[in-house]
Amino acid sequence: MKLASRLDHIAPFQVMAILAKARALEAAGRDIIHLEVGEPDFATPAPIVAAGQRALAEGHTFYTAAEGLIELRMALAQWYRQRYDVAVSPERIIVTTGASSALQLALGLLVEPGSEVLLADPTYPCNRHFVSLFGGTPVALPVGPDTRYQPSAAQVATAWCERTVALMLASPGNPTGTLLPSDTLAELVTLCREKGGALIVDEIYHGLTYGVDAETALRQADDAFVINSFSKYFQMTGWRLGWLVVPEGWQEPAIRLAQNLFLCPPAPAQQAALAAFEPATLAILEERRAEFARRRDFLLSALPALGWKLPLVPEGAFYLYADVSAVTDDSFAYCQRALDEVGVAITPGVDFGEYGAKRHVRVAYTTGVARLAEAVERLATLRG
Amino acid sequence: MKLASRLDHIAPFQVMAILAKARALEAAGRDIIHLEVGEPDFATPAPIVAAGQRALAEGHTFYTAAEGLIELRMALAQWYRQRYDVAVSPERIIVTTGASSALQLALGLLVEPGSEVLLADPTYPCNRHFVSLFGGTPVALPVGPDTRYQPSAAQVATAWCERTVALMLASPGNPTGTLLPSDTLAELVTLCREKGGALIVDEIYHGLTYGVDAETALRQADDAFVINSFSKYFQMTGWRLGWLVVPEGWQEPAIRLAQNLFLCPPAPAQQAALAAFEPATLAILEERRAEFARRRDFLLSALPALGWKLPLVPEGAFYLYADVSAVTDDSFAYCQRALDEVGVAITPGVDFGEYGAKRHVRVAYTTGVARLAEAVERLATLRG
Ligand SMILES: Cc1ncc(COP(=O)(O)O)c(C=O)c1O
Ligand SMILES: Cc1ncc(COP(=O)(O)O)c(C=O)c1O
Repeated sequence: MKLASRLDHIAPFQVMAILAKARALEAAGRDIIHLEVGEPDFATPAPIVAAGQRALAEGHTFYTAAEGLIELRMALAQWYRQRYDVAVSPERIIVTTGASSALQLALGLLVEPGSEVLLADPTYPCNRHFVSLFGGTPVALPVGPDTRYQPSAAQVATAWCERTVALMLASPGNPTGTLLPSDTLAELVTLCREKGGALIVDEIYHGLTYGVDAETALRQADDAFVINSFSKYFQMTGWRLGWLVVPEGWQEPAIRLAQNLFLCPPAPAQQAALAAFEPATLAILEERRAEFARRRDFLLSALPALGWKLPLVPEGAFYLYADVSAVTDDSFAYCQRALDEVGVAITPGVDFGEYGAKRHVRVAYTTGVARLAEAVERLATLRG
Repeated sequence: MKLASRLDHIAPFQVMAILAKARALEAAGRDIIHLEVGEPDFATPAPIVAAGQRALAEGHTFYTAAEGLIELRMALAQWYRQRYDVAVSPERIIVTTGASSALQLALGLLVEPGSEVLLADPTYPCNRHFVSLFGGTPVALPVGPDTRYQPSAAQVATAWCERTVALMLASPGNPTGTLLPSDTLAELVTLCREKGGALIVDEIYHGLTYGVDAETALRQADDAFVINSFSKYFQMTGWRLGWLVVPEGWQEPAIRLAQNLFLCPPAPAQQAALAAFEPATLAILEERRAEFARRRDFLLSALPALGWKLPLVPEGAFYLYADVSAVTDDSFAYCQRALDEVGVAITPGVDFGEYGAKRHVRVAYTTGVARLAEAVERLATLRG
């Protein structure tokens, strides 16, 4: 029996190896500060949990429609109206098993063997693999602080070829936390339309922006594929619930593919998520958002003392993407040392692509300021 | 923007259209008897629900390892020991988001563009699509009552070619409910080994067998890929939880692929499933199994009066696959009429393949005997 060759092109997440090693060190009695984990450190807000428990008591344990509960799709449409003042019909919203399934679904609808898909480097690592899964080729667009780590229209225009079927963006991005500027989005929307390609925008970190609200791509582009999730802002990572907004006319094939790939998203999670938009829940989430802002601001002021360069202030997510070239020329080895020698777990740039990967690390501020301060102190001892 | 051509080859499930129409008729006041739905009519047993509620209260709302909780993998290993007297190491068990994700994972590990995979016709419709997803070609093996609707070794040997990478079986099968005879399995295991191909066995209906227990393929073939789920016997369909057992040595790539495709299976479901093997749960499940057996026996005795042929007694699942050629030469039209004229929803053979599809319907006995009896009475008025 032979392993399919796609596995040759799927690198393990270094962050998982680091997490595993961190856990092993903890089991051996070491105190580890976790700045590697890409999920909020807050458990799901109580009103959502209570709704989930109630749903279980009421026997909501059966398959739902493949596209999700209509009540939830209507609540999401209402959310787009209320938060973004954008009209999205519930029929265009497909509830999925996390943004992971939404990404897979969008690419399954668009990518043929031989297709090319443009995406930023650095980016969320699974994106590349979802493209390859369907026989497509991911084409990396190296991005830096000059464009807020987002592709520019000129760059996309140059990279676009006749095999290109889509451009994938994320705003705020992972690992960089930066928003796509509104005028860049406008240019990219126009470009994708001219080229006849699809625009896919991952908005999973919406809600987690500080001092500014993110605009949905749907405001400018009714024909975009927009991915989102209950994982991050709503702090429901483990429940596995997300959604995909498709352009008018794409619902039927999207639902057909979702039926076959997933049957349906988790029913208890869908019931629980109905409580995600209640004022009591939103009050909790906004408090936590403020806490993330405090953490970001702390790190932005403290990290430069380590010699780390943070060339811009990222507006969102819970990541800082730092240039550590002043302290190391191999960020992977540096992350290993940080964990081994001072018990601080951070993620090397190599998890997110190739461009500048050896010069960068990602710090997730998914722990409180006191621990962040201690992490900075420990890392200071590692220098030189 | 162009829809990927894979969507040309994915037919919608007729059963979903029938279900939707049945619901619409119900909304208009009609009484519909549902014999189309492929899930138990029982809500998840109370001890599992209680464990799920407890887990939520305790804050188990975070991502888990991609391969699932080690406690659950150990419980599954223990289940193989206790139920089947087979040793399976927990490391070989990958917890997944339903059997759906387990099927996708197994085929993602094995299928290259150009690969062929052999499977029965009729079979569970998603299987074909999972093969195509990875660029493979599903090759149908027409099966009938003479081989208990399971492929024979001779048939597999004839169909095998140099592009063949795997044989997919299901025991008990959907839509036929039949077990793979133990000696046929032995022949197929030998054949796959000789050919250097993988044997994939879907055991999702294990536990739901009547008067006989199903043997896991793992007893004969430690090198098989075995798919299972908490959906059917454990009645956790909506929770989305299943598992894949991989041969020794395949864990690492399997986990790597699972990480990228799914991140992890639902955390509350995993915690809840820890209660699935408790004596109190098993007592409930065994009562329900007895109820399914009564329903099957009732239909086996009642349906022949309609002129439907049931050439064998299926040992498991909750389906009967009936030859209705004495009453129609178009089972699809017949199913439409059954729903429209007498309010009985059944699934046409066409959902499961091509071979004999127009002569067959699938009846799911996922409702009580009284309703089954009424369904038979109603269908009797449809004849002629
Ligand atoms: C940018 C981005 N997209 C998608 C995902 C997938 O998240 P989920 O499947 O939990 O919604 C993640 C998770 O970290 C992410 O960072
Ligand atoms: C034979 C078979 N395999 C797999 C599945 C998928 O089930 P799940 O994803 O709910 O575990 C089904 C569902 O009906 C099935 O009948």
